[in-house]
Amino acid sequence: MVISSKDNDRIKAARRVRDGREPGMIFIEGAKLAAEALRSDIKVEAAFITVDARGRDAAAGALLRDPRIKGAPVFEVTEPVIASISDTQAPQGIILLARRPALRPVTPSATLLLGLDRVQDPGNMGTLLRTAEAAGVDAVIPLGGCADVYSPKVLRSAMGAAFRMPLAAAEGGDLTLPPGMKVAAATGEGDMDYCEFDWRVPVLLLLGNEGQGLRPELLARCDARLRIPMARGVESLNVAAAGAVILFEAARQRRQAGQKTAKARKSD
Amino acid sequence: MVISSKDNDRIKAARRVRDGREPGMIFIEGAKLAAEALRSDIKVEAAFITVDARGRDAAAGALLRDPRIKGAPVFEVTEPVIASISDTQAPQGIILLARRPALRPVTPSATLLLGLDRVQDPGNMGTLLRTAEAAGVDAVIPLGGCADVYSPKVLRSAMGAAFRMPLAAAEGGDLTLPPGMKVAAATGEGDMDYCEFDWRVPVLLLLGNEGQGLRPELLARCDARLRIPMARGVESLNVAAAGAVILFEAARQRRQAGQKTAKARKSD
Repeated sequence: MVISSKDNDRIKAARRVRDGREPGMIFIEGAKLAAEALRSDIKVEAAFITVDARGRDAAAGALLRDPRIKGAPVFEVTEPVIASISDTQAPQGIILLARRPALRPVTPSATLLLGLDRVQDPGNMGTLLRTAEAAGVDAVIPLGGCADVYSPKVLRSAMGAAFRMPLAAAEGGDLTLPPGMKVAAATGEGDMDYCEFDWRVPVLLLLGNEGQGLRPELLARCDARLRIPMARGVESLNVAAAGAVILFEAARQRRQAGQKTAKARKSD
Repeated sequence: MVISSKDNDRIKAARRVRDGREPGMIFIEGAKLAAEALRSDIKVEAAFITVDARGRDAAAGALLRDPRIKGAPVFEVTEPVIASISDTQAPQGIILLARRPALRPVTPSATLLLGLDRVQDPGNMGTLLRTAEAAGVDAVIPLGGCADVYSPKVLRSAMGAAFRMPLAAAEGGDLTLPPGMKVAAATGEGDMDYCEFDWRVPVLLLLGNEGQGLRPELLARCDARLRIPMARGVESLNVAAAGAVILFEAARQRRQAGQKTAKARKSD
């Protein structure tokens, strides 16, 4: 049976999840993102697919036969119905509703963490997740006031990174770090060039709000305040760009240290 | 006289400029962006301001007395009228219409250029302009198929950089570079770590489309194909993040070279 009414109760419920009004649930749209989600240990509660998507998109059809979706009801819907649930201009014909994954505590073996304070733009949040994963960050920690990492817009710009990389909890700003881990902040008022910092040690990098930067109580916890040297007359970088610059400097230093170690071993 | 009708001919014309249907004109919204535009050699054709913005925002009021706006008609409009022209959810009460600035040829003294091929997302385009300016890029060259650098969305995410930094022309992909300038491309299939490249020489960095990368004819012109080493399982970075990573590696190498030169001079 195909759902053809936008007023169907299940369709209304899907829109509530999309709009963030069901805190325990998340909204996953498109075959690519759905596949990434299913590769994680996510628990699917319902799937919606159009007849057209099932025929057109072999990947979308195959997803619904994925054993990890088993047990969850799959609903066939019409194009106008999926358009009424979709978060995009061009609906992709497949949507999953799933339980919101729980954030985990920071693992003691972590050597590179990214803490985000009130990063509000979903595009910045998603790009930072994607960039952090690529740079080898062990976990991202939303420190309060950030765009929801599992909102549809963040999931889209993170390109699946939200399902692949650990997201750590810091309930009420209560952040327990592995012993000996340094805390470095990126701030326009930093007194140290970010390239002068030694990124080979375990470190948490903190990035703050697009306009206001980090909260003073977080700045106070920092061992180093870093700045990115910029051309004259330029005030600041976009927070996702600043994160990319600094995290890949960390990756560069660590790669170089690894190469030196490997060379030293070779010449032994 | 206050314009209170959304159907006023000048208001209709403003909407056409906003929507990109007047190729010779550009749309500048908000006091901050308007001030940046007036600091450049832009030619203003008309200004719209709400009574409320003039009273509330001293900066907005002062702008309209700026001698550089002289000659251009200033129209007072109602809140609903500015909302009907505005490109944002929260109109800021001031909008300028100006002549589209002409792109300039690349100056022979340039040592760091950024060429963009079909970068289509306005947010990426704007962030790349802002990042390029901060990293000390001499000019950005849209190589065709990019989001319009003067569209309202790009202007917003570039935070004024589009008015401060040179934008160079490459009509029909015909790109004349200063003699001896290297061309380096960022590509997932690159065979050289971007940190191994010598960024102290004059160089044009090419970045390509979000999904498809660079066109083959541009890749064929490259002296070096660079990749950004990434954590296992990660396919790619957002193009604006990749640009930030590479341009600030260039800045780092140049800064370091400058420090060495300064040190050598000191010890002479």
